[in-house]
Amino acid sequence: MPASAMDSLIFRDIFSTAPMRRIFSDEARVQYYLDIEAALARVQAGLGIIPTEAAAEIVRHCQAEQFDYAMLKAQTERIGYPVLPVVQQLVGLCRDGLGEWCHWGATTQDITDTATVMQIRDALVLVEADLEAIAAALAELARRYRDTPMAGRSNLQQAVPITFGYKAAVLLAGFQRHLARLRELRPRVLVGEFGGAAGNLSSHGADGLVVQAKLMDELGLGQPEIAWHTMRDRIAEVGCFLGLVTGTLGKISMDVKLMMQTEVAEVYEPFAHGRGSSSTMPQKRNPISSCYIHASVSVVRQHAAALMDAMIADHERSTGPWEIEWIVLPEAFCLMAGALKQTRFILEGLEVDVAKMRANIDLTNGLVMAEAVMMGLGRYIGRETAHDLVYDICREAIRQHRSLLDLLAEHPEINRHLDRAALAKLCDPANYLGHAGVMVDRVLANLAA
Amino acid sequence: MPASAMDSLIFRDIFSTAPMRRIFSDEARVQYYLDIEAALARVQAGLGIIPTEAAAEIVRHCQAEQFDYAMLKAQTERIGYPVLPVVQQLVGLCRDGLGEWCHWGATTQDITDTATVMQIRDALVLVEADLEAIAAALAELARRYRDTPMAGRSNLQQAVPITFGYKAAVLLAGFQRHLARLRELRPRVLVGEFGGAAGNLSSHGADGLVVQAKLMDELGLGQPEIAWHTMRDRIAEVGCFLGLVTGTLGKISMDVKLMMQTEVAEVYEPFAHGRGSSSTMPQKRNPISSCYIHASVSVVRQHAAALMDAMIADHERSTGPWEIEWIVLPEAFCLMAGALKQTRFILEGLEVDVAKMRANIDLTNGLVMAEAVMMGLGRYIGRETAHDLVYDICREAIRQHRSLLDLLAEHPEINRHLDRAALAKLCDPANYLGHAGVMVDRVLANLAA
Amino acid sequence: MPASAMDSLIFRDIFSTAPMRRIFSDEARVQYYLDIEAALARVQAGLGIIPTEAAAEIVRHCQAEQFDYAMLKAQTERIGYPVLPVVQQLVGLCRDGLGEWCHWGATTQDITDTATVMQIRDALVLVEADLEAIAAALAELARRYRDTPMAGRSNLQQAVPITFGYKAAVLLAGFQRHLARLRELRPRVLVGEFGGAAGNLSSHGADGLVVQAKLMDELGLGQPEIAWHTMRDRIAEVGCFLGLVTGTLGKISMDVKLMMQTEVAEVYEPFAHGRGSSSTMPQKRNPISSCYIHASVSVVRQHAAALMDAMIADHERSTGPWEIEWIVLPEAFCLMAGALKQTRFILEGLEVDVAKMRANIDLTNGLVMAEAVMMGLGRYIGRETAHDLVYDICREAIRQHRSLLDLLAEHPEINRHLDRAALAKLCDPANYLGHAGVMVDRVLANLAA
Amino acid sequence: MPASAMDSLIFRDIFSTAPMRRIFSDEARVQYYLDIEAALARVQAGLGIIPTEAAAEIVRHCQAEQFDYAMLKAQTERIGYPVLPVVQQLVGLCRDGLGEWCHWGATTQDITDTATVMQIRDALVLVEADLEAIAAALAELARRYRDTPMAGRSNLQQAVPITFGYKAAVLLAGFQRHLARLRELRPRVLVGEFGGAAGNLSSHGADGLVVQAKLMDELGLGQPEIAWHTMRDRIAEVGCFLGLVTGTLGKISMDVKLMMQTEVAEVYEPFAHGRGSSSTMPQKRNPISSCYIHASVSVVRQHAAALMDAMIADHERSTGPWEIEWIVLPEAFCLMAGALKQTRFILEGLEVDVAKMRANIDLTNGLVMAEAVMMGLGRYIGRETAHDLVYDICREAIRQHRSLLDLLAEHPEINRHLDRAALAKLCDPANYLGHAGVMVDRVLANLAA
Repeated sequence: MPASAMDSLIFRDIFSTAPMRRIFSDEARVQYYLDIEAALARVQAGLGIIPTEAAAEIVRHCQAEQFDYAMLKAQTERIGYPVLPVVQQLVGLCRDGLGEWCHWGATTQDITDTATVMQIRDALVLVEADLEAIAAALAELARRYRDTPMAGRSNLQQAVPITFGYKAAVLLAGFQRHLARLRELRPRVLVGEFGGAAGNLSSHGADGLVVQAKLMDELGLGQPEIAWHTMRDRIAEVGCFLGLVTGTLGKISMDVKLMMQTEVAEVYEPFAHGRGSSSTMPQKRNPISSCYIHASVSVVRQHAAALMDAMIADHERSTGPWEIEWIVLPEAFCLMAGALKQTRFILEGLEVDVAKMRANIDLTNGLVMAEAVMMGLGRYIGRETAHDLVYDICREAIRQHRSLLDLLAEHPEINRHLDRAALAKLCDPANYLGHAGVMVDRVLANLAA
Repeated sequence: MPASAMDSLIFRDIFSTAPMRRIFSDEARVQYYLDIEAALARVQAGLGIIPTEAAAEIVRHCQAEQFDYAMLKAQTERIGYPVLPVVQQLVGLCRDGLGEWCHWGATTQDITDTATVMQIRDALVLVEADLEAIAAALAELARRYRDTPMAGRSNLQQAVPITFGYKAAVLLAGFQRHLARLRELRPRVLVGEFGGAAGNLSSHGADGLVVQAKLMDELGLGQPEIAWHTMRDRIAEVGCFLGLVTGTLGKISMDVKLMMQTEVAEVYEPFAHGRGSSSTMPQKRNPISSCYIHASVSVVRQHAAALMDAMIADHERSTGPWEIEWIVLPEAFCLMAGALKQTRFILEGLEVDVAKMRANIDLTNGLVMAEAVMMGLGRYIGRETAHDLVYDICREAIRQHRSLLDLLAEHPEINRHLDRAALAKLCDPANYLGHAGVMVDRVLANLAA
Repeated sequence: MPASAMDSLIFRDIFSTAPMRRIFSDEARVQYYLDIEAALARVQAGLGIIPTEAAAEIVRHCQAEQFDYAMLKAQTERIGYPVLPVVQQLVGLCRDGLGEWCHWGATTQDITDTATVMQIRDALVLVEADLEAIAAALAELARRYRDTPMAGRSNLQQAVPITFGYKAAVLLAGFQRHLARLRELRPRVLVGEFGGAAGNLSSHGADGLVVQAKLMDELGLGQPEIAWHTMRDRIAEVGCFLGLVTGTLGKISMDVKLMMQTEVAEVYEPFAHGRGSSSTMPQKRNPISSCYIHASVSVVRQHAAALMDAMIADHERSTGPWEIEWIVLPEAFCLMAGALKQTRFILEGLEVDVAKMRANIDLTNGLVMAEAVMMGLGRYIGRETAHDLVYDICREAIRQHRSLLDLLAEHPEINRHLDRAALAKLCDPANYLGHAGVMVDRVLANLAA
Repeated sequence: MPASAMDSLIFRDIFSTAPMRRIFSDEARVQYYLDIEAALARVQAGLGIIPTEAAAEIVRHCQAEQFDYAMLKAQTERIGYPVLPVVQQLVGLCRDGLGEWCHWGATTQDITDTATVMQIRDALVLVEADLEAIAAALAELARRYRDTPMAGRSNLQQAVPITFGYKAAVLLAGFQRHLARLRELRPRVLVGEFGGAAGNLSSHGADGLVVQAKLMDELGLGQPEIAWHTMRDRIAEVGCFLGLVTGTLGKISMDVKLMMQTEVAEVYEPFAHGRGSSSTMPQKRNPISSCYIHASVSVVRQHAAALMDAMIADHERSTGPWEIEWIVLPEAFCLMAGALKQTRFILEGLEVDVAKMRANIDLTNGLVMAEAVMMGLGRYIGRETAHDLVYDICREAIRQHRSLLDLLAEHPEINRHLDRAALAKLCDPANYLGHAGVMVDRVLANLAA
């Protein structure tokens, strides 16, 4: 039985997803190895380096499900790396010793690194799909609630009104940046490895670089300018990308948790029977997905640091730092996948209590509109005077627990300029939303672009 | 198929161990829950809070293997935590509704936290056994090589001679400290949790604290002075302990890797057929276990930081930080177990090349003995004069690629005081080992104490 | 002008404190070096190793303010470590070449490590004083608000009532554990270093260990069992301690921030004119100190990981890992000091709005008392029936936006057993505080012990 | 006196550089604030929002050296942020109350964030210059040693020959990627902030976005699509970039340290009198700069994680996470600057011992050429036969401590095909360098592009 949260029989679909786990499963890893061995055989047969018959036989057996995993485990423990044991089984599966032509001129880390890059490529496809779905969900929220007032909060204090659509658009802009980052890193990161023991293709003849180029073509990967066995900036960059994206997921989960508080109650994670409720505390509506996101994000951030640690590789093939990636990369992607899924779940089904948002603005008896009133009144009595007057009235409102509007309407210096109806308009958050709507539109326009 | 390195069909016994994984497996976790429910039922029956018949029926069904894990998974995903689903299945297994008496007055986190502490307790037993085995192996090395000269190195430069036993004793002293830390943290950490929704036992009558005390007695855990649902220093302290211990394992693996270098070749990881060798590079003897240790250590260190992050818990029951522990704690223990196992393997079978150690000291043509010569000659010609003279001769030895001894023996100012035999004695590392042996004895004496 | 936040002319007393910075200042560091050199001279003179006259002259000049820091900087950049430059200046200050007797048989890292331990010792005195002050402030809050009801919160949802004193006592228990940790680590950590180039005192004669013992006595430090130049668990343990303590500070700051929210408004950081207020948003009362604490905690946690990284030291004197400590240790202590100070400031002057605490419990129209009502009613109509009935009434209360008490009092199955007065009693949080008070007393009793 | 390593009177130019510290100094920070205030005044005067006379007077006083830093410190401690205190002093400096027009419609975080971006912009200019200098130094090494054989090492074991130029080119390719990353992140990161209390420019009229656009033009920064007060991916991305670059610096320092070992002795940090030497151990040549780099890298990596932590910002203006950046960003840049400087120093003056590189290849009695011999012999006796035969001979060579060439030349199955001269050619590392040279050329060509 598994011991890690992401493989747990109970927690695995909470902290991860099946498609992502599949990419980093043992069988998939072996299949990636075999896809590379098959591609190498095809390329080398095409160049006349190995017999066509051998290539055909090798390709025919590059099926991970034919492999014996118990033997693979035992041999990996003995040798230290799983590539050679896979090759040995592959040789064994081929008839007439034709398998001896497989893995021609390759080194363990060539296969492992290239497989890792293929895992990253496939994993990033899943990540991108989730990023786009999240962006779409945020765009929908931004559109629908473009003009829905709520309290903007600074230092966990109500500050001035914003709209819920604006809040969504701020998040959306972040995902647009993440998608741009993904576009930029792909060509730099999705580059294979094929260089032999020290990377300089020394066991290859003059055709070494041709084999390398054709192999990468075959696999749909970029050709490396030079070996990167111990230059791990590409892998660490992926870790940073995961860290940056999960950081934004963490920000979303933080806001959702805060807005779900009993005392705030503005949005809710999607309801499902029994979800987040308590049998003895019927008033509770727990933010479940947000908790999972929070936790995963805290771990992925540290994984990013561990992947940077893995960069401190020695000489041409490193002694320990490389293996950091073996542990961390699958886990970071799996946790990330879980956090993305939970975030999608929240955003695609978010329950929004527009009335409560409006009601919360009134919690301060209108004080949250003080800045608006100052600006509005300034036109009549001067900015500074307006500021000082309104500030004094606000303190009085706090003292007397009365509404700002009432006190403004009673004040002789004010009601000579503005009657209660005009003051009520000034105190209406819907009239003090600034450029929230326009900003929403700008972000949505970027999306279309 | 699992996706994490520690559960991988291929890597799991490289990066972890079966006994440690077992403790953090789903089935074991459910069994810990059930052990607590059973103990609670027994205690409450003993106090007359629930019927004796109910307790007997509950205890009879507290067997993890009777549980349906697919259902458990589905319900956990719905509810957010696995405790209630376990309780519901337990209720279902009991006849005549007697199961309704189980989990009386407990809250989800009471069971989860107490189970976590029991996992920690059992995991620390495994850790302690490995720490003691490692200490024993180091003690054996310290004893055997107490007087075996080798180059002491500072800044990766040969400095002055030490003994290999001294090197082992320095490490051993660290493990003695780790064992002391373990002794100290146990009573503080191995404390259960039982407090209800907000920890104040409000759903219990006057006997709440009695139930709590008897429950902890039954489980062999300490009684908490007050709830610690959101005071996670105990758990983070365990994470720090794992981080500290693995730090020392990392130091060992670093030294072994460095001493195994082709150019140094003083010690080797234990040999096994094919282990760490290459089919085309027969000169290689790769440090396999050291690589695994290095990688695990780099990850556990980051896990320790994540567990400190989990301390930033909100109010009486936290919203996300707690779940960090669910991911990190099992993994930190599992990786630690793997690193301990690899370290034991190295130390219990370490191959030591005493002749090569001695030969390496001579690599510098005796310059590594310069300090010894300065000290020895000082008696005759004064300390400062001796220093300046020897320093000049050393530079000459570097320039001429000749041995220090030859140049010393030729020097008129020196050979008037000391003949070649006397100088050779000064240049013999075995005569300049300082208090290495005595220090070894001191550390070994601590072990006995 | 300084560039770091902790030395900044503007921020230094926000993120740190003057007494802590003093300990880690250049002048103090030099003075620690000189204190060790002076002690060594005294010890060696006492043992007849160096002339008494030399020792007197050396001791006389061991005054950091006599040193030229520009020269020290230049020489440190050349040599790589500041100890030798300090010794050279000391030699220069002494008359008649008597200074040549200073630093007799010591190595750079002996002085540096011992100075570091002395810095830690003095820094921990400051830390302990703050921990005790914080514990005292929490004890005062626990005592004063022992029976003051407030909402206990789980998953940021109101759960069941607790008292504010109980909340303080939960925190207080954590500080009691931190003080115990401090007591335990002191004898293990406050151990000096004196071993020479490779730690084995090879440049000393038979009296090496005697000098070591007397030197440590003189300095008030423990004698090491063996050199620890590259066994850095002691230093990393201090980092972990700082990480654990700041974790608890982070929990406090999180709770204060949440309780200061506009919508919660139960406690406030101490008021000072202009503090945390806004010129245009008069309703704001920003949690300033809590922000600083949050930030410092996030950084110290990472520093703890960096100090574990520093444990991966090579051979007898490490090549880079050691210098991690030079950067991290001063900063971790300084940030910690700032966070402790800010926490003291909050807790010693915390404004508590008891009425608002009580009012918040009523926010859910009494639903937060549902568990209490279930328990109370169970006596009359059976536990399960009571649960189902109350749960249904709660959902009705949510639907109708009416109070739980009203609906209970109207219900025929309920009011036949309990009249409105009796029901009101059940719904009174003050009657459902469980063992909160007793638990407070238990924790306070520990404090006295 | 400062307490941090980067501000230390002794260490500051070891762990940082003056130009980088200058950017993050208090005075520079104030000047950045003032530059923004001046730009804002100019823009608003141009748009007729504030009087031209006021703008002129404001701009005239935007000189950081006119400000009182003690007062600034005191007021910042009171208010919590330094921007308002700066504005207040600026107002005070202006005649006739004209200063009241400054900071019109701006909020504290607008100014702080924009200043931070300007600091990043200027700091990245310094970083880029160092990256280019390092790339140039590596290019020079790659060119000069393009065909200089040395042992390629895998798992710290000699594997097959490479060239030192190849080793340099592998590193160089990494810096080319870093420079590409820098180009990509600049337009995304170098974007200002101007949005008011909640980011939606609510205190501005219709011209809010026009002011924003013109202000960013004036400052040479990009205009934000929407506020990013609590979307900190831009800042965290910079942290990741620093982490990635320092990771590569760490790799370089690791290789230099390893190559400087007494037993390897292939390259040396540049020599300067007394640098890295010992007064009593004349054989030592310590890698000083490499140690500093190693340490800084370990810290910056954790800073990157802390900056990702800072992404978990609440609502519209965060409560603590933001302040993480205040501590971490200056330090990460300063440590990075120090590490870049030390790396430049090493690479621009690296001493390379070509003869020792060649001699080390011979350490294994030619075994490091086994793969080459297998490949060469395969042509005559078949690949598999060649492998088995050579492997056996290698083991014999190890057993007898004789050279591979001797044993090959003696072997009847071999010397019938190849005479000693031919075999010597096979055993010559210069003839088995694979595509090392071509790869060097490819990377150098990229540089030119």
